[in-house]
Amino acid sequence: MKTTILIHCPDQSGIISAVTAFIHRQGGNIVYLDQHVDKEADVFFMRLESDFEGNLPDIVNFNEEFNATLALPYQMQWSHHLDDVKPKMALFVSKYNHCLYDLLSRYKSGELLVEIPFIISNHNDLTYIAEQFEIPFYHIPVTKDTKNIAESEQLEYLNQYHVDFIVLARYMQIVSSKIINEYPNKIINIHHSFLPAFAGAKPYHAAFARGVKIIGATSHYVTEELDAGPIIEQDVTAVSHSHTIKDFIAKGRDLEKIVLSRAVQLHVKRKTMVYNNKTVIFS
Amino acid sequence: MKTTILIHCPDQSGIISAVTAFIHRQGGNIVYLDQHVDKEADVFFMRLESDFEGNLPDIVNFNEEFNATLALPYQMQWSHHLDDVKPKMALFVSKYNHCLYDLLSRYKSGELLVEIPFIISNHNDLTYIAEQFEIPFYHIPVTKDTKNIAESEQLEYLNQYHVDFIVLARYMQIVSSKIINEYPNKIINIHHSFLPAFAGAKPYHAAFARGVKIIGATSHYVTEELDAGPIIEQDVTAVSHSHTIKDFIAKGRDLEKIVLSRAVQLHVKRKTMVYNNKTVIFS
Amino acid sequence: MKTTILIHCPDQSGIISAVTAFIHRQGGNIVYLDQHVDKEADVFFMRLESDFEGNLPDIVNFNEEFNATLALPYQMQWSHHLDDVKPKMALFVSKYNHCLYDLLSRYKSGELLVEIPFIISNHNDLTYIAEQFEIPFYHIPVTKDTKNIAESEQLEYLNQYHVDFIVLARYMQIVSSKIINEYPNKIINIHHSFLPAFAGAKPYHAAFARGVKIIGATSHYVTEELDAGPIIEQDVTAVSHSHTIKDFIAKGRDLEKIVLSRAVQLHVKRKTMVYNNKTVIFS
Amino acid sequence: MKTTILIHCPDQSGIISAVTAFIHRQGGNIVYLDQHVDKEADVFFMRLESDFEGNLPDIVNFNEEFNATLALPYQMQWSHHLDDVKPKMALFVSKYNHCLYDLLSRYKSGELLVEIPFIISNHNDLTYIAEQFEIPFYHIPVTKDTKNIAESEQLEYLNQYHVDFIVLARYMQIVSSKIINEYPNKIINIHHSFLPAFAGAKPYHAAFARGVKIIGATSHYVTEELDAGPIIEQDVTAVSHSHTIKDFIAKGRDLEKIVLSRAVQLHVKRKTMVYNNKTVIFS
Repeated sequence: MKTTILIHCPDQSGIISAVTAFIHRQGGNIVYLDQHVDKEADVFFMRLESDFEGNLPDIVNFNEEFNATLALPYQMQWSHHLDDVKPKMALFVSKYNHCLYDLLSRYKSGELLVEIPFIISNHNDLTYIAEQFEIPFYHIPVTKDTKNIAESEQLEYLNQYHVDFIVLARYMQIVSSKIINEYPNKIINIHHSFLPAFAGAKPYHAAFARGVKIIGATSHYVTEELDAGPIIEQDVTAVSHSHTIKDFIAKGRDLEKIVLSRAVQLHVKRKTMVYNNKTVIFS
Repeated sequence: MKTTILIHCPDQSGIISAVTAFIHRQGGNIVYLDQHVDKEADVFFMRLESDFEGNLPDIVNFNEEFNATLALPYQMQWSHHLDDVKPKMALFVSKYNHCLYDLLSRYKSGELLVEIPFIISNHNDLTYIAEQFEIPFYHIPVTKDTKNIAESEQLEYLNQYHVDFIVLARYMQIVSSKIINEYPNKIINIHHSFLPAFAGAKPYHAAFARGVKIIGATSHYVTEELDAGPIIEQDVTAVSHSHTIKDFIAKGRDLEKIVLSRAVQLHVKRKTMVYNNKTVIFS
Repeated sequence: MKTTILIHCPDQSGIISAVTAFIHRQGGNIVYLDQHVDKEADVFFMRLESDFEGNLPDIVNFNEEFNATLALPYQMQWSHHLDDVKPKMALFVSKYNHCLYDLLSRYKSGELLVEIPFIISNHNDLTYIAEQFEIPFYHIPVTKDTKNIAESEQLEYLNQYHVDFIVLARYMQIVSSKIINEYPNKIINIHHSFLPAFAGAKPYHAAFARGVKIIGATSHYVTEELDAGPIIEQDVTAVSHSHTIKDFIAKGRDLEKIVLSRAVQLHVKRKTMVYNNKTVIFS
Repeated sequence: MKTTILIHCPDQSGIISAVTAFIHRQGGNIVYLDQHVDKEADVFFMRLESDFEGNLPDIVNFNEEFNATLALPYQMQWSHHLDDVKPKMALFVSKYNHCLYDLLSRYKSGELLVEIPFIISNHNDLTYIAEQFEIPFYHIPVTKDTKNIAESEQLEYLNQYHVDFIVLARYMQIVSSKIINEYPNKIINIHHSFLPAFAGAKPYHAAFARGVKIIGATSHYVTEELDAGPIIEQDVTAVSHSHTIKDFIAKGRDLEKIVLSRAVQLHVKRKTMVYNNKTVIFS
């Protein structure tokens, strides 16, 4: 039985020693430990993979004791995950297919260890992909007037299927606080620029107009401020004067799908922690 | 005798054919031709390296005939450069040494084919490098009140030495239109971010606060709007939560010096053309 | 009507002028010209996109005249392509799905302008993808003993469907000269290393054993010598001691699919020329 | 008082817990802990930065107790470094100046915290740089016949100045086991290719002949087998058919100097460990 523990707390002397001794006493072997101190904020972060080789003590007891012995005295925020439970991932899309295809082909081939209960879209264009991969597809149109109702409908599906996190795979709508508040740091977006440059609409057009020599893509957790949430992953590619906007868009598609998939994998493997609108990404 | 011709004009049918036939008639062999059409702006760009193998016709005649036969009918803006004339490059610095060291070591080893008549600085800190490389160093302090006088003094040196272009090698002052107007698209700056993100002061601090996963450097021609001139070259490097601002600055130094040197080389080799606040960079 | 002309010939004075004048006389406007001289081999390469705006002269006449006026006197090898004819691409696969998924999703979304008459595989594993995308799938098992017969069967399909080029999308078999000779510089392979490092089998294992800090993928035209054909495209990604072989393979998958797709696009857009076992890749 | 401890030993349960408790008992606070397990070789690696804030116990006692309590029972190989002691770095060069300039400018500006007692060269060409930076320069010519004597002379200087490690900054000679045995994993070389491709002489020529689309540079510890030692750092840059060998060499220079400097910094900051001819590079 393998588990992953994520911890953050005020930086103090002796934390690593205390936590590793605790795991040891509980019969666990630490398979991987990664730790970080944000010296500006004076915050300590740790990610621990432990192997209990069959002798995991009762998980409720373990957690209670961890709380009493460590979490309380060190003022920790922490979570404890069983590695063999697949999280439930909802996909939101609009008309672009490249990110959807990329995620679904990774899912289908067993590279991405999630369950995908459904795909939601404000358009019908990608129904054919849902059919190709035999995943339920809910078409929920969104207009200015129906947005509130549409989000209520989305929330119903999210609740009904006990969705753990949401991936906006080029979903061209702004998600409101109604949904964000239910999924804090659990909605992953892909933006087609190297943020903070070119936030908002039409970033490739803006990049072309500015004459940049590099374009990028950014995957981040969604917060209320548009394109301003904690960045999980970014990548870039070179462009030149010889590329048209159409070329930017084509090159960008490859960036977007790779960057989004990497971010989703990091989230699924519980390698991301959020603090002060930034991420700690464990390797 | 080798020469380089740079042309831009409204896009029209038959230009390449007309120009290449002209060179051919004048006894030149086209060694390299690079061409670009900006279809949005409907502008044609061309860069031609020709080899006249000793039989270059009188350059004044050549230019007059080119003007009459091609430049006028096609409404060209063009320039004609003899490849063996080294341009004169002035260096402006403040306190950071890495870009200065990098440029001077390339100059000293014959990699950068320019003359460097002098280094100007608003501080005395880098005098020792000027001495190491035996290049005149003029210390011209700049304060709010003395800026106008200081720039006049700078211009005197620039004029006296017939400087062709200026490189701001981490010169921490804003250059005013007084100098920019004398050197349009001839002042090369290095900015320590992937513009347009983090223009202005302290970009590494801003990048750190935003939690980006990639930092960059941008070399551009200086225009009146700060950090908004035509971009010549950009590059980036990955960073993570484990890097402090100090680490960003250290990693950035390597980017800055490489990106600035590349931009300077492109300018020296006449591979840059500017149009609509963007650059065409020939390969 | 747009066409693309590819030329290579011994380097001589006046070629560009002669060719561009010819196109001009035939009523064509040169939309894009890219040219290269290999000075070591003394060979001239050119790629010309021309737009005839409806008035393309009879193609047979055009080609005959081009032959007489240019190809013969300049000893050119050349080809002339109508841009709106989609080439026919056959896909060979084994068990890995990532390159196949990537190519088919680009095809399905109209990004990759080819026809795909069929997929051939020596295994049955990927039948489901062929079904998802409704493309004929021929299962032709290959063993040492049946290889010759299997390749004859493959050739029958290739001939029957008038296939223009073949993509080995992680086809784990060596293709013999029997097929290579029918498709010279028309079989595109993806090898999972930065060639020439780690040619042959199990490159990720070899890279791991050597302790490299960068892994790569290489797309190349297939020649008789294994993994030694002209390289079309390469890319790399950073790895570290913390990555296992399994991690190398996972990271490599993303490289492989992107690198192969780029190479296929370059081939389809007729931006590749082969000479002396190397490629000229036009931008 | 800050110190760095490097440990490797057979992987066992409870090591992290035992070591961190030990540091804690000795009055140290763990500032940074990085750990790695090579699961194939079943070896555990750890790097610990500790801060004793003035109360470092007697270092001899500390080390003896560490040996008795931890190193012996866990069969550790370990080392303990005081962070404020600058290591002594000898530079070996031949005729190329770019790596030398790069390292010396970092040294001079305080970016590289080492002492440089001398530069050794088999040629006189770079004397001027040694003079620029006021560092002793010993010219020791090397021919087939004098190699043994030359290396004896080199060793005398190395011993006399108590040199800690050697950097071959494009030193074009093969270093024999005579010196390697005295400096195991303490001689850093820069090779101008992405090893293992193009080991040995003239890698840029070989890369050009093969038609690769990416060239690289590799910094590694020197072992008896040429260009086959543990790799510390690698980087690459894109090239195309339009680049000549001379272009490869020019682009390569920038790679070489950056990659070598990074490797030297990693070594100086004690972030490298060697095992099974591979490196663990802590971040």
